[in-house]
Amino acid sequence: MKLLEERIQKDGIVKAGNVLKVDSFLNHQMDIALFNEMGKEFKRLFSDVEVNKIMTIEASGIGIACIAAQYFHVPVVFAKKAQSVNIDGEVYSTKIQSFTHKRVYDVIVSKKYLSPDDKILIIDDFLANGCALEGLIDIVHAAGAQVSGIGIAIEKGFQKGGDMIRSRGLRLESLAIVESMDDQTGAITFRH
Amino acid sequence: MKLLEERIQKDGIVKAGNVLKVDSFLNHQMDIALFNEMGKEFKRLFSDVEVNKIMTIEASGIGIACIAAQYFHVPVVFAKKAQSVNIDGEVYSTKIQSFTHKRVYDVIVSKKYLSPDDKILIIDDFLANGCALEGLIDIVHAAGAQVSGIGIAIEKGFQKGGDMIRSRGLRLESLAIVESMDDQTGAITFRH
Repeated sequence: MKLLEERIQKDGIVKAGNVLKVDSFLNHQMDIALFNEMGKEFKRLFSDVEVNKIMTIEASGIGIACIAAQYFHVPVVFAKKAQSVNIDGEVYSTKIQSFTHKRVYDVIVSKKYLSPDDKILIIDDFLANGCALEGLIDIVHAAGAQVSGIGIAIEKGFQKGGDMIRSRGLRLESLAIVESMDDQTGAITFRH
Repeated sequence: MKLLEERIQKDGIVKAGNVLKVDSFLNHQMDIALFNEMGKEFKRLFSDVEVNKIMTIEASGIGIACIAAQYFHVPVVFAKKAQSVNIDGEVYSTKIQSFTHKRVYDVIVSKKYLSPDDKILIIDDFLANGCALEGLIDIVHAAGAQVSGIGIAIEKGFQKGGDMIRSRGLRLESLAIVESMDDQTGAITFRH
């Protein structure tokens, strides 16, 4: 998606350790006009699949998922990190390794909001090693529901997550795939 | 806001300990059509104040804030719980006591996304004792920015947060104010 690639070129900052900081428009400050264009693009890319619910994971995925949901006319469910005393009853849960935060999270979704009839579009801001995504897919499958597709804002194409998900036969669409980046020069190249 | 009150009556569940569960439409599964009506109502209520940025706190505030931001045509910044290694440089920070999660959080906002020129509308899903909101107000003031208003989806009118905020002369608008609730009968009454 040209608009997103241009924005990453303009405002993204490459840091040592394969870190791409896009917190000025994507995951700390959020450019809602850009999110709307991304939402329209997700709808175009997934126009041929059945979607009755969007699932994401807190926190950075929520804004993108909610704006995108307007184009699918479906509710959003976000997976929560760690057990909340406000969630009662039965939950689907999985463990997710976060490299960003250097810890393992318990991630949960209430069983009330996933059923075997659901056709789920998973949306998230980043795909790198794929750990978070694998966790969300596990939760959808544990509910007997179907993953209709996976929509990612920025995929780090040089990490293993994208290949791993595609090799499972899942429909994955990333709006921008970073082929390589260089923290010395700040250069970012995209896969097309 | 009648639509929200009706939805709380229909789908809200009163639990012991002053807990009102609205996770079927507000803060786990999210009804985006309802969020759009709430966003329009926030815009109507704050049509007379200057707003150039919406601020919220992860995670449940993000969806409501992003949808509402479409009616104000402004970006959203969400305060993050706990230090992330992906946030560099200087941050504004405060400590917030969460009764829901029975712990104290460090909450941070990058200094890059708050400036003395900012006229901030704070949006959150719940107002009870007001601890989270006080923390967000502290962060806005630490930046030398102005709190133009505070928009809350559900205020628990029988807890102290609302009175505390209003007594400071801040403009607070809650879309639904729960006057009382009873976990034995499930009855919920609203303040008008």
